[in-house]
Amino acid sequence: MDKHELTKLLNSVADGTLPPEEAALKLKMEPFHEVGDYAKVDIHRGIRQGVPEIIYGAGKTKEQILGIAKTMLGSGQETVFITRLIKESAEFIKKDLPLEYNETSRTGIIGKLPPPSGLGKVVVATGGTSDIPVAEEAAVTAEVLGNEVERLYDVGVSGIHRLLGNMDHIMNAKVIIAVAGMEGALPSVIGGLADCPVIAVPTSVGYGASFGGVAALLAMLNSCASGVSVVNIDNGFGAGYMASMINHIAEK
Amino acid sequence: MDKHELTKLLNSVADGTLPPEEAALKLKMEPFHEVGDYAKVDIHRGIRQGVPEIIYGAGKTKEQILGIAKTMLGSGQETVFITRLIKESAEFIKKDLPLEYNETSRTGIIGKLPPPSGLGKVVVATGGTSDIPVAEEAAVTAEVLGNEVERLYDVGVSGIHRLLGNMDHIMNAKVIIAVAGMEGALPSVIGGLADCPVIAVPTSVGYGASFGGVAALLAMLNSCASGVSVVNIDNGFGAGYMASMINHIAEK
Amino acid sequence: MDKHELTKLLNSVADGTLPPEEAALKLKMEPFHEVGDYAKVDIHRGIRQGVPEIIYGAGKTKEQILGIAKTMLGSGQETVFITRLIKESAEFIKKDLPLEYNETSRTGIIGKLPPPSGLGKVVVATGGTSDIPVAEEAAVTAEVLGNEVERLYDVGVSGIHRLLGNMDHIMNAKVIIAVAGMEGALPSVIGGLADCPVIAVPTSVGYGASFGGVAALLAMLNSCASGVSVVNIDNGFGAGYMASMINHIAEK
Amino acid sequence: MDKHELTKLLNSVADGTLPPEEAALKLKMEPFHEVGDYAKVDIHRGIRQGVPEIIYGAGKTKEQILGIAKTMLGSGQETVFITRLIKESAEFIKKDLPLEYNETSRTGIIGKLPPPSGLGKVVVATGGTSDIPVAEEAAVTAEVLGNEVERLYDVGVSGIHRLLGNMDHIMNAKVIIAVAGMEGALPSVIGGLADCPVIAVPTSVGYGASFGGVAALLAMLNSCASGVSVVNIDNGFGAGYMASMINHIAEK
Amino acid sequence: MDKHELTKLLNSVADGTLPPEEAALKLKMEPFHEVGDYAKVDIHRGIRQGVPEIIYGAGKTKEQILGIAKTMLGSGQETVFITRLIKESAEFIKKDLPLEYNETSRTGIIGKLPPPSGLGKVVVATGGTSDIPVAEEAAVTAEVLGNEVERLYDVGVSGIHRLLGNMDHIMNAKVIIAVAGMEGALPSVIGGLADCPVIAVPTSVGYGASFGGVAALLAMLNSCASGVSVVNIDNGFGAGYMASMINHIAEK
Amino acid sequence: MDKHELTKLLNSVADGTLPPEEAALKLKMEPFHEVGDYAKVDIHRGIRQGVPEIIYGAGKTKEQILGIAKTMLGSGQETVFITRLIKESAEFIKKDLPLEYNETSRTGIIGKLPPPSGLGKVVVATGGTSDIPVAEEAAVTAEVLGNEVERLYDVGVSGIHRLLGNMDHIMNAKVIIAVAGMEGALPSVIGGLADCPVIAVPTSVGYGASFGGVAALLAMLNSCASGVSVVNIDNGFGAGYMASMINHIAEK
Amino acid sequence: MDKHELTKLLNSVADGTLPPEEAALKLKMEPFHEVGDYAKVDIHRGIRQGVPEIIYGAGKTKEQILGIAKTMLGSGQETVFITRLIKESAEFIKKDLPLEYNETSRTGIIGKLPPPSGLGKVVVATGGTSDIPVAEEAAVTAEVLGNEVERLYDVGVSGIHRLLGNMDHIMNAKVIIAVAGMEGALPSVIGGLADCPVIAVPTSVGYGASFGGVAALLAMLNSCASGVSVVNIDNGFGAGYMASMINHIAEK
Amino acid sequence: MDKHELTKLLNSVADGTLPPEEAALKLKMEPFHEVGDYAKVDIHRGIRQGVPEIIYGAGKTKEQILGIAKTMLGSGQETVFITRLIKESAEFIKKDLPLEYNETSRTGIIGKLPPPSGLGKVVVATGGTSDIPVAEEAAVTAEVLGNEVERLYDVGVSGIHRLLGNMDHIMNAKVIIAVAGMEGALPSVIGGLADCPVIAVPTSVGYGASFGGVAALLAMLNSCASGVSVVNIDNGFGAGYMASMINHIAEK
Repeated sequence: MDKHELTKLLNSVADGTLPPEEAALKLKMEPFHEVGDYAKVDIHRGIRQGVPEIIYGAGKTKEQILGIAKTMLGSGQETVFITRLIKESAEFIKKDLPLEYNETSRTGIIGKLPPPSGLGKVVVATGGTSDIPVAEEAAVTAEVLGNEVERLYDVGVSGIHRLLGNMDHIMNAKVIIAVAGMEGALPSVIGGLADCPVIAVPTSVGYGASFGGVAALLAMLNSCASGVSVVNIDNGFGAGYMASMINHIAEK
Repeated sequence: MDKHELTKLLNSVADGTLPPEEAALKLKMEPFHEVGDYAKVDIHRGIRQGVPEIIYGAGKTKEQILGIAKTMLGSGQETVFITRLIKESAEFIKKDLPLEYNETSRTGIIGKLPPPSGLGKVVVATGGTSDIPVAEEAAVTAEVLGNEVERLYDVGVSGIHRLLGNMDHIMNAKVIIAVAGMEGALPSVIGGLADCPVIAVPTSVGYGASFGGVAALLAMLNSCASGVSVVNIDNGFGAGYMASMINHIAEK
Repeated sequence: MDKHELTKLLNSVADGTLPPEEAALKLKMEPFHEVGDYAKVDIHRGIRQGVPEIIYGAGKTKEQILGIAKTMLGSGQETVFITRLIKESAEFIKKDLPLEYNETSRTGIIGKLPPPSGLGKVVVATGGTSDIPVAEEAAVTAEVLGNEVERLYDVGVSGIHRLLGNMDHIMNAKVIIAVAGMEGALPSVIGGLADCPVIAVPTSVGYGASFGGVAALLAMLNSCASGVSVVNIDNGFGAGYMASMINHIAEK
Repeated sequence: MDKHELTKLLNSVADGTLPPEEAALKLKMEPFHEVGDYAKVDIHRGIRQGVPEIIYGAGKTKEQILGIAKTMLGSGQETVFITRLIKESAEFIKKDLPLEYNETSRTGIIGKLPPPSGLGKVVVATGGTSDIPVAEEAAVTAEVLGNEVERLYDVGVSGIHRLLGNMDHIMNAKVIIAVAGMEGALPSVIGGLADCPVIAVPTSVGYGASFGGVAALLAMLNSCASGVSVVNIDNGFGAGYMASMINHIAEK
Repeated sequence: MDKHELTKLLNSVADGTLPPEEAALKLKMEPFHEVGDYAKVDIHRGIRQGVPEIIYGAGKTKEQILGIAKTMLGSGQETVFITRLIKESAEFIKKDLPLEYNETSRTGIIGKLPPPSGLGKVVVATGGTSDIPVAEEAAVTAEVLGNEVERLYDVGVSGIHRLLGNMDHIMNAKVIIAVAGMEGALPSVIGGLADCPVIAVPTSVGYGASFGGVAALLAMLNSCASGVSVVNIDNGFGAGYMASMINHIAEK
Repeated sequence: MDKHELTKLLNSVADGTLPPEEAALKLKMEPFHEVGDYAKVDIHRGIRQGVPEIIYGAGKTKEQILGIAKTMLGSGQETVFITRLIKESAEFIKKDLPLEYNETSRTGIIGKLPPPSGLGKVVVATGGTSDIPVAEEAAVTAEVLGNEVERLYDVGVSGIHRLLGNMDHIMNAKVIIAVAGMEGALPSVIGGLADCPVIAVPTSVGYGASFGGVAALLAMLNSCASGVSVVNIDNGFGAGYMASMINHIAEK
Repeated sequence: MDKHELTKLLNSVADGTLPPEEAALKLKMEPFHEVGDYAKVDIHRGIRQGVPEIIYGAGKTKEQILGIAKTMLGSGQETVFITRLIKESAEFIKKDLPLEYNETSRTGIIGKLPPPSGLGKVVVATGGTSDIPVAEEAAVTAEVLGNEVERLYDVGVSGIHRLLGNMDHIMNAKVIIAVAGMEGALPSVIGGLADCPVIAVPTSVGYGASFGGVAALLAMLNSCASGVSVVNIDNGFGAGYMASMINHIAEK
Repeated sequence: MDKHELTKLLNSVADGTLPPEEAALKLKMEPFHEVGDYAKVDIHRGIRQGVPEIIYGAGKTKEQILGIAKTMLGSGQETVFITRLIKESAEFIKKDLPLEYNETSRTGIIGKLPPPSGLGKVVVATGGTSDIPVAEEAAVTAEVLGNEVERLYDVGVSGIHRLLGNMDHIMNAKVIIAVAGMEGALPSVIGGLADCPVIAVPTSVGYGASFGGVAALLAMLNSCASGVSVVNIDNGFGAGYMASMINHIAEK
């Protein structure tokens, strides 16, 4: 709740249009709806028409996800986006709601995608074939949030010519999401070539001393390239969300 | 080297204005200058007039830093910015060059600061007083790169009213740099309040199980707020650089 | 065995009512009963009538749990409380004993709950929906030990208004149990708002660099709020027990 | 800010005694004072007369500590307590203010100690001689906050008779702070003997695989005794504060 | 191969009873037999009649274990002892050989146990019920190697009277194997009470910050009691073997 | 792309035989083929006739592996080698292509093995029986790349005579691959005996504090023997490839 | 306190020779003496004439060490042994007491050494020259406790012939202490050669991935040799004490 | 000792030219010389004339280093090479022996360097300026062992054109040593470009989550390029030794 809204609320109290008890209540109750006894659905501040609401599916039962989705749609939300959605839950929800499920990215969408907007293109690059599921989570998230996305998969640093052969895409991006497991060097090399922000996503791809993505995570945090920041291991959603925020920053 | 420059170079070869041997040499030699036998100074692709060149001072002798700075200034660079500059080196350089040294942020500037540009303000917030040196490195970096910076220090989450009392600054930012040690919760709370990108900087402030900033780093990587990405522990420079890149993204 | 009991025992020996050999035996044998060859059931010192005996179910076979429960009930114990009880074991025990099983908290109760006592209310708060099983273990434990419990779920710090909207519950608590995974910031924020002891419970909720709850654990240990102490990852029982002990401290 | 104060503030706006702009300002500015540009001194909600204000000295310059202390005393605060205060800073402050410095616990007090209050005694126990500085930080903190403290030093578990020989103190405590390095077993043994809350403090005492207190920390988190919770490595202050909060819980 | 045997071999060469080529061959080939192409069965130096040969079953197929056991029995070995033997492999071997399988300790024996020998008794103590499988591996190993074993289970430090009630067994032991998970404090307390060597065995019993036995391992390595040494997590066999070696040291 | 090829390409442009646009395209497109949308098959620079192309099977679906293999064979490749190939995928591929599957090393070959070449023999040694699968991956890789391989299995350091009994093989090797789990000491001992390069491969064989191969990895990195370098845990392929590269170094 | 002593005490109470209050007091006070307010000196149960009392010097001030030593000598103790004694403290103590200081092992002795006793020799072996200080702590400890010690330094596994050249010492030992840093392989190799107990001592010798002795510690815990147990990093004292206990086990 | 030498020794015994006792002695004593009581100098098996003997200086006193060097030179050794030699020790040795000290690589040489031999050139590349000391240790080691070395410093992956501009050196190398701190990506990129063995050396250059070189180490172990193996953090010597061994492999 920002200062402007607070002053407005207090003004309503001052001019008698809002009793103080109701104002206190409003301050407490307004921003969320209870769904059963397991979640408080957050109807965010500045949500514009057509922007999807997002459900993080991990650790929720299929019944909970369905309940939350229905509450959102019932509040007038046009599009609902679900991440970390396993197939079984997707099929359960499909019986009730018109969900489109993407098995690679493990995401589901109810409603229409918004048309691409923002300053330019979001490029999603991966080091290898095995990083694609995480990259797709990032790419689909960015698309759902209204971005044109370009995919650049399997351009890992041990075959640097594959990356150099795609320099035009790198140079044309507004934001780049660099997804890599194993030694996690892709963001450093891309960060040195590009002059736009790079969001680095370590993946848990690898074995032995990759320690489930820790090796890639550390490499990315220690990148000697400037303009690189990092999200959690396998956090494609977080990268896609951050990229979209940057790509739409001028509109704010 | 992007596709456009490559095609142009090849055209010069095709029309006979550039012999192939020279072209090969140019491809190899053009982008950097050797300084002594210890560094290759990188004269970046698209550097516009007036944008400072940056020297990372850690692990370099004072003589090496001076040598690199002179090479840069000799190449026509108007402003040189040095990070991780210890006082002793700063005083050594001052004898030869008009360096202004900032002891808190351990940075030095030779030449003039560019006037603020970009889409809006960069807010730099810290959890506590001890995080200020890292925050200043971020703030000064952003200023050197042409950003208006607002400082919001000592607004840690254990006294949440201090943060809420500054909601107007939070809401007016284009990018927020959230700097915190100990439990590293500041970026999560700010990320939930703001609707702009948040760059999280863990600091090595703390003791015991803070493990030199690891506790804060992990907390930030696991932030449940969307729109948060993370840089290395104590990496104020990286955060400032990333923030500036985002703030200037529309100009690219 | 405290000093008072020891002096009393020695007095009995001194006045001839207890032969020394029997006294030595009593010192050794009194405080526990053997159950089969796999457990020594501890009949605690100062146990008052009506306070439940507790069985930690993890790592015990269903037959062992049943055996221990029967021994306790046979010793005159009115209520038996079992934690970390998997469904299969619960169903096995139900055939013999009138067990009530709570699937969310994975706990079982044989016998009646004591009426709430203590100084005031125990509040159990969670950061998200996925933390509820651990929170329920804490809440049920506190209830079994004679406390009035208030649940405040899904009030994580990335939507700080949800927490602030419940300030009255926070301010009315005698003890607060703050349960959170991921970045584990909830106890810090609550600790800054409340003026009662906060027991922090990290959960293994999260992925990637949450390392099974380690990120949350470290954040909580490094809390910059005063009046916060921490129990093991997912240790809802420990938090509930500690909270009850504090809530009943005046009675001791 | 609790619900009661909020309603009162809003009532003042409603009855015209407080203009809405001032109310908004008050909501933002009231709870803290700025000291220089490096700290926001928190004048807490319900502070009763005579309760000391606390300054965490680590990471602050001696000038900053002096500045904050003066601001506090200037606000009418009678007693100021400083932790993690190094000797050099103490001597600097002594020139201006009547500070009493305790070298073992590295704490300083300006003003008078409050008389002991609370439900009973706080016992502070250590495993060895080397744990005493941390234990003293806990003990002095508890004393400063109005508790009677009993010290029980060098009663480590490898000589269990030393602990058993002090059973009367263990049994008479309202809260016990168990401080130990190395294998960190003291809280487990005390937790099994006592029937009051035990605050465990791991210390960085040890070498090799003690990893600066990590071994003791892990042992304490994994304590098989109920009623044990843990604070950060070497965090004597946190333990003393928590113990005082518990000891005064009935007064709240 | 010790010096004595080497001199004897060389003497045989010197006096012509052994051709040098055969001697070289003997030096190379004598100490082991090849079994299939997957193992070299080690016919140890000083093995006395009646001492069992040991097979470490983990990571070996049931066919490999059977093959090695047959080779051993075929070499005149009277007793074969198999550790880390899963039930399925045990049943497979039983079809061919008279194996006795112990499901708790996951060990199998083919042939007769030797009568107890050595200086005295080996006591095996555990902190809890869940540590029993590891303790049984230790106990059975010691029995197989010719030791009288006393079991003292569920005497963990959070109920110190259970341990003190068994002081006579502790005082009568020649070697004590202390097995514990969670905080791993048992060896420290026993080490302080007993005046014989204590072999500490951390177990992977626990959850959360026990990290699969690491907490217990670190605690044991940092034991403040003298006369304690440690084996690997869950390594009951290693402890039993070491204990037997110590108990038979006078016979060597 | 090396300097020689670049100069040649530029010469073609200079003499008009290659239009600049095509040259730019060639620079981008030549080195790899797209397979579906999931992989870029790398047709390496200097590949000589008869040298196998390699597919890393882990993290790829059986359909993807088959697709890549067909593309390679379609490009004229005579032999294709697949590592980390699970049985199910192998059987799927066998339906279409003449694959020979090795279950121990989890590798598959399509086409003929090259005859052994190189400077000498590659010896593959293991500490125990359980290390054999990793060792076989190394051995088969080396064979596929044209090396004569000698296997020396189960020669771990706790029975040093088994290793000493094979000194002739150690002394005759050109490169030794030393594979070991648990304490990982084999490369150190071999490195002290041999005077050729030793490639150390830690395996995840072990339990408890072996931490999935970390103990062995650390031991090998800390080897006090000279001439030892290390690959990732369980990376038999990497060791075999490196060994082959060394064995064929004179041919380059 | 063992059962026998307890019965005797109770008998004294029963026959009237000891009043119960005094008995209670005796149970509490007998086993230790207070020294100042910083230590409880433990006058152990079964201490025979001539056996030295031991002070662990680390973390104690020179004044504290002197105070404890004087208390011990005042109690009739003939020999006092101090470990982890820095030179400065040694020189301080020398002014008052006839201390002999050993700079390599950082130990001091006041009084006479006992003549060697026990079953046989204790061999102390090291991997390298840098491990000698830890080895000397072990060796001197064993000598002080009445053992004949044989030193076997710089026999690391990367030059296995140095170890094999000393097989006669290895074979004649009753207990072997194997001290090594870096890869920590020495105990495994010795454990495979010897048939007596091996106490492994990891040292913090090494750099990089030795992590202050962790690599050696893990290697030793994972030793594939039987009859090896481990003490803390750099814990020469613990190893010497354990070795002496084993060597004197028959006397108990 | 290889089989051939053993057979020869045994033949001498068989034909009477060598008494068996002397043979046993020779087997034990021949390969090393004792220096004082702190080191066994290893006079290696196959050392050819002119190859330097190496002393690892870390953890040795200046007197010990001097003593070992004199013993070596006294045995007829022409060149002695000392690594990890601090300036103070170097100056001490210079008083007695004609040592040449290299401050950057912290190495010293007594005697003449051998002329370059081997199959080709060893290239030593670094990611940054701060990696140069480790790289110099590698380079000087390789030179001392008879290799022509090419230095390629400051060619890190965040400015990939610097590396690509040196492709001719990369393509002409027989072995490449890739030295990098921070994200440690250099070996992966070089490994993908070169077709010779790459020895990766992680350095402790970096801060925060570089953890003293662990980030770089993990990245290198997880390299997706084939033909890369890794040595310990900062182990320039090990890399130089391994590289030389590979470069001279054909001569063996």
